[in-house]
Amino acid sequence: MTEAVSRPTLEAVAARAGVSRATVSRVVNGGDGVREPLAERVRRAVAELGYVPNQAARSLVTRRHDAVAVVIAEPETRVFADPFFALQLRGISKELTAHDNQLVLLLTEGRDDHARVARYLAGGHVDGALVFSLHLDDPLPGLIHDAGVPTVFGGRPDWGGDTRAPGPERPGRAGGNPGVVYVDCDNRGGARTAVRHLVDLGRRRVAHITGALDQTSAVDRLDGYRDVMADLPGGSDPRLVVESDFTPGGGEGAMRTLLDRCPDVDAVFAANDLTALGALRVLRASGRRVPEDVAVIGFDDMLPVAMEADPPLTTVRQDIEEMGRLMARLLLRGLSGGRDRAGATADTPPDGGVILPTTLVRRASA
Amino acid sequence: MTEAVSRPTLEAVAARAGVSRATVSRVVNGGDGVREPLAERVRRAVAELGYVPNQAARSLVTRRHDAVAVVIAEPETRVFADPFFALQLRGISKELTAHDNQLVLLLTEGRDDHARVARYLAGGHVDGALVFSLHLDDPLPGLIHDAGVPTVFGGRPDWGGDTRAPGPERPGRAGGNPGVVYVDCDNRGGARTAVRHLVDLGRRRVAHITGALDQTSAVDRLDGYRDVMADLPGGSDPRLVVESDFTPGGGEGAMRTLLDRCPDVDAVFAANDLTALGALRVLRASGRRVPEDVAVIGFDDMLPVAMEADPPLTTVRQDIEEMGRLMARLLLRGLSGGRDRAGATADTPPDGGVILPTTLVRRASA
Repeated sequence: MTEAVSRPTLEAVAARAGVSRATVSRVVNGGDGVREPLAERVRRAVAELGYVPNQAARSLVTRRHDAVAVVIAEPETRVFADPFFALQLRGISKELTAHDNQLVLLLTEGRDDHARVARYLAGGHVDGALVFSLHLDDPLPGLIHDAGVPTVFGGRPDWGGDTRAPGPERPGRAGGNPGVVYVDCDNRGGARTAVRHLVDLGRRRVAHITGALDQTSAVDRLDGYRDVMADLPGGSDPRLVVESDFTPGGGEGAMRTLLDRCPDVDAVFAANDLTALGALRVLRASGRRVPEDVAVIGFDDMLPVAMEADPPLTTVRQDIEEMGRLMARLLLRGLSGGRDRAGATADTPPDGGVILPTTLVRRASA
Repeated sequence: MTEAVSRPTLEAVAARAGVSRATVSRVVNGGDGVREPLAERVRRAVAELGYVPNQAARSLVTRRHDAVAVVIAEPETRVFADPFFALQLRGISKELTAHDNQLVLLLTEGRDDHARVARYLAGGHVDGALVFSLHLDDPLPGLIHDAGVPTVFGGRPDWGGDTRAPGPERPGRAGGNPGVVYVDCDNRGGARTAVRHLVDLGRRRVAHITGALDQTSAVDRLDGYRDVMADLPGGSDPRLVVESDFTPGGGEGAMRTLLDRCPDVDAVFAANDLTALGALRVLRASGRRVPEDVAVIGFDDMLPVAMEADPPLTTVRQDIEEMGRLMARLLLRGLSGGRDRAGATADTPPDGGVILPTTLVRRASA
C-alpha cells in the first residue's frame, strides 16, 4: 500500500536526467527525435529511479489504451442475476481478447452512478465503450455523447427522433439516429413469429407478458404481438396484455394477474425466457397443463434456462453471445478507422443499426 | 464513432489561447497560479473548441482517479458461474459506491491475459486494485508488485516465505509477507470445527473433498481436516482425501471416486458448498440417505445454494460480502493515507493479514 507514495514521477526522471518532461515522454514512449546521448541519459534515469512509464502520460502521445469499457445500465446485482448479461459479456470478452484489448466492466449500484461512469469514460482510460440495457430517460447516452467516447450500443437506443422499429404502419428500415451505431435482434419480427405460431395452433385468447416498457426491446416485442393480434376477432382485448420487467418474479406476478383477469387465456407469449419461467410456475400451481390448457412461448432461447424449463420452452432464439461479439467487432473496426464511411458494409448499414435475425425454436411448451 | 477523431486536444486549446500546455493544464485542473486575463483566455478556448478535460492529463496533476480495479484471477465464464464472486463483488460495489469510487472490473479469458491486466493496472487508470482467487504460480502478484499499484488481496496470497496458516504444529499468528495486505476467513479453524462436528456425531470414516490445491484456501481447509483426523484411529487413511476444484461437477467426480475407494464412508467434509451440492447428487443417485448413511458439510454458507440443497446443507459460514466490503475499505483507507503505519488498527494488524471468523451453521445434512 505504500509503493504509490514513493512511485517516481515523469518529472523526477526529467530532473534527474536534466532534460524536459517532453523529452522524457518521447524516449519513454519510443518516439524518435531524441539524440542518442540525451536518450541514453533518460534511460539511465528511468532505470535508477525505477520509473514505471505511466499510461496517462503515454496516452497523451498515442491516445490509445487497448482497453474497451462495457457499461450495463443495470445495478450490479441484476448484472449477476440475469444470465443474459453473462452471455453477452462472453461474446465481448472473446472478441476483445482476440484483439488483445482489455475488457473494463464498469459496475454500478444504479442510475445515480451513471454520471460517475460517464466521468470515467471521458477520462481517457479506454478507447471506446459498449453500452447495453439502456432504459428510457437514462442520462447515460447524453453523458456519453458529451464525453465524445466512441460507442456501440447493444439494443436500439431511443432518444430523439423516430426510432420505432419498422412495422405495418411504418414499413421500411430500422429507425435510428444518424451516427449512432447499435446492434439488436429483430425483436418485432421475432414476436410476430411467436404469436402467429400460437394462433396457427388454434389459440384465440393469446396473452402477452411484456418486458420493461422503458426499454426498446420490450416495446418492439409488444408491437410485434399487436401486429398479429390486431387481425383477430377480440385480439385487441387490452386485458390480455400485462406489463412486467423481464424477471422470473415479475413473470409470476403478471401470470397471476392474467389468470385473474382472463381465466380463459389459452396461450402466453412472454417477453423473455425468465418471465416465461415465472409464468410456468404459476400455471403449474393453478393446476393448468402446459401446453394442453395454456401454451407458452418465451424469447431469447437462453441455455440452459429454456431447455431445463418444465416443460422445455418453445422460444424465439436470438444469438446473445454473437450480439456481444459483433458489438466489440464494430467498435474495434471503428477505432482502427476501418469503417467505410461512404456507405454500408455487411455489418454496418449507413443508419448505424445492425439487426440480427431470430428463429422460432419449438419445444414442448407450445 | 467519429467524435474521437475530431475531439479537441489540450494542445489545440493551448494553440487557440496562445499559451503553453502547462498553463492550459493548470487552468483546466483548477490549479492556482495563472493570472486572470490568461486564465480567462484559456477558458474561452476550452468553450469554443468544446474541449473535454482529459483525465489522462488531469491525473498527471492530481494522480487520483477515484477508481479501483477488481481482478478475479479466473476466466470470465467462471466469474459468472460461481455466485461466490458475485457476493464478493456486491460488498466491494457497495463500499466503493459509498465513497463515490468507480468499480472497474477487469475480465479475462484466463491466465494468459494477466500480463495485459497488469499493464492496465500500471497504466495510471485506477488508484488501486482488489485482487482475488489467486492460484499458485500465477505471475499476477509479481506483475502487480512491479506495477507499483496499491493492492489488497482477497484470500491469503502464497508467494515467497512461509505463509501457511497457523496450526498445532506451528502455533501463532497468521503468516504473511510484510507489506502485503489481505483479507481472508479462518479457513483452517472453520475446517476443524466442521470435521470435529462430524466426529462428535459418531462418524469415523470422515472423507474430505478438497478445493483447488493451488489456492491457499483449499490447502488451509485440508490442513484443518488433517488437524482433527490425525488424532483418530485410521483417521489418516489417504484414500479418504480426494482432490477437487471447488465446482459442482468436480464434487460429483470426487464423490464417485470416494464411493469407489471407500464404500464405508459415513461423512464428507466438502471444501465448499458447490462441491457439496455435487456430492449430494451422487450420494442420492447411489441410494445413500443423507445424513443417515452419509453426513455432509460444506463451506461458505452461500445463499440460496446451501438453503435450497436437498437436504439443506450444514456448512461453515463465512461472510463473503463483508470480506469484499472490508477489502475495499482497507484499500480506500490506505489510499487516503489513513493507515496507521506505526502499528495495528482493528482492521489491519502489522503483518497485513485480516482473518475473519467462521461459524458452523447446522441444517439437515449433518
